[in-house]
Amino acid sequence: MSARSEPGLRAPRSLQRFSFNQATAKHWPLADAVAGCVAAGVPGIGLWREPVAEYGLARAARLVRDAGLAVTSLCRGGFFTADGWREENLRAIEEAATLGTGVLVLVCGGLPPGSRDIDGARRRVTDAIAELAPHAAAAGVTLAIEPLHPMFCADRCVVATLGQALDIAERFDPGLVGVVVDAYHVWWDDTAYAQIARAGARIAAFQVCDWVTPLPEGVLLGRALPGEGCIELRRLREAVDAAGYTGPVEVEVFSAQVWARPGLDVLDDSIEGYLRHVV
Amino acid sequence: MSARSEPGLRAPRSLQRFSFNQATAKHWPLADAVAGCVAAGVPGIGLWREPVAEYGLARAARLVRDAGLAVTSLCRGGFFTADGWREENLRAIEEAATLGTGVLVLVCGGLPPGSRDIDGARRRVTDAIAELAPHAAAAGVTLAIEPLHPMFCADRCVVATLGQALDIAERFDPGLVGVVVDAYHVWWDDTAYAQIARAGARIAAFQVCDWVTPLPEGVLLGRALPGEGCIELRRLREAVDAAGYTGPVEVEVFSAQVWARPGLDVLDDSIEGYLRHVV
Repeated sequence: MSARSEPGLRAPRSLQRFSFNQATAKHWPLADAVAGCVAAGVPGIGLWREPVAEYGLARAARLVRDAGLAVTSLCRGGFFTADGWREENLRAIEEAATLGTGVLVLVCGGLPPGSRDIDGARRRVTDAIAELAPHAAAAGVTLAIEPLHPMFCADRCVVATLGQALDIAERFDPGLVGVVVDAYHVWWDDTAYAQIARAGARIAAFQVCDWVTPLPEGVLLGRALPGEGCIELRRLREAVDAAGYTGPVEVEVFSAQVWARPGLDVLDDSIEGYLRHVV
Repeated sequence: MSARSEPGLRAPRSLQRFSFNQATAKHWPLADAVAGCVAAGVPGIGLWREPVAEYGLARAARLVRDAGLAVTSLCRGGFFTADGWREENLRAIEEAATLGTGVLVLVCGGLPPGSRDIDGARRRVTDAIAELAPHAAAAGVTLAIEPLHPMFCADRCVVATLGQALDIAERFDPGLVGVVVDAYHVWWDDTAYAQIARAGARIAAFQVCDWVTPLPEGVLLGRALPGEGCIELRRLREAVDAAGYTGPVEVEVFSAQVWARPGLDVLDDSIEGYLRHVV
């Protein structure tokens, strides 16, 4: 049953922390996604740099501001082991500031091609964040380190656990460098709840989707809408709340099947999954 | 270049800890694999229950004994969240004893279908091991908990890190319950080296293969021969040695591409990868 058919569930109060990450409906044009969110009573949206650039940065900033939507995060900076990371990340910080979001999500990058030096790659992450932090501070943007599931360690993110992300973040002022708690990336970790408690005010963003098997080739697009898989989403939401987090809950799903559907339907089902399985 | 073309690399001394896990050449008949190992000067083989049962348990035990091969481990017990786990694991313990190996590898099982209760599944693992331990002790078999990479947490093994495996193992006598350190499953973990040091005499087996991307659909068969990927295999081998481990080093690769090749070639390349990247 779609949430659209149950208007009672769509009362603004129950959605006050809900945010729709635009990557969940990757092929939904930005203007349509913004209009869809407004019509559904959704107060926030998570944006990605590429579709924002395509629409035009200033124009996108105006679009969401005029719509009264909060930009809950910008994805993404990071990839610190790639050439040109410095300029790319400085641009990302500026874009976050222009869009009016205080959270730039960092996906820190994997091993350089042919490298086995995981310690070296991890040092580069810390060094890069140290170099970017003053720029982020000047722009009023928090650098939010997102630990990615260990299956992405080689090619996307050498920061593989919340504990490891916190070890890096804690070298910096809270508010300047935080962490993203994404249910998909941390649910399997028997220390996840202890690390969420440790994170406290470092939690800059909380994202949800669900884990289903079998994973597809390349594993990136294997996620599911909240409630369709095996993650204890409500328990994780309660844990970040107990740690003091009061910010938005972003639904962010990468899935070829979900992307093939109309954006409005995906938004509806994201809301329904959120209401049934997260809040 | 194949190891076969470099006889100097094949001196028995350099292979004294090498073991060939039969799953690396899944379609190689057991008798041929045993003969191949003997001809190559390989002292040990890791066996799997299904091909052993197909060949006949007593007959397989005689085959490897007559060949002078050590059975370095039997894969696998576990799957404690499935029906019939008790009888299946008691049989596996007996089979290990019959084959003359002191190591039964446990892949502990994922979440039951439809379940999100990861804590409950983890409790069942500990409870099951407690129940099996006296039987394993009577048979002279160590129960070796293998933490699997977190991408298998939902469907194969809720024990996802070496630290978590040790938390379970340490409830029991050393020698009775140990852990498997498999490079493929632990390499990404920033606490892996600390946990290997902690493991010490709990290390019941050490297995190597390599990590390559992209992962294939289902992710099980995405492994590569030692040296073909990004894992610091030698560093991990040195770490288990430093922890006091003096046992065999099993090459265990699950790969559709490797399985499609002749067994003897796979054995040769396993030896070469071991000599170049592990010892």
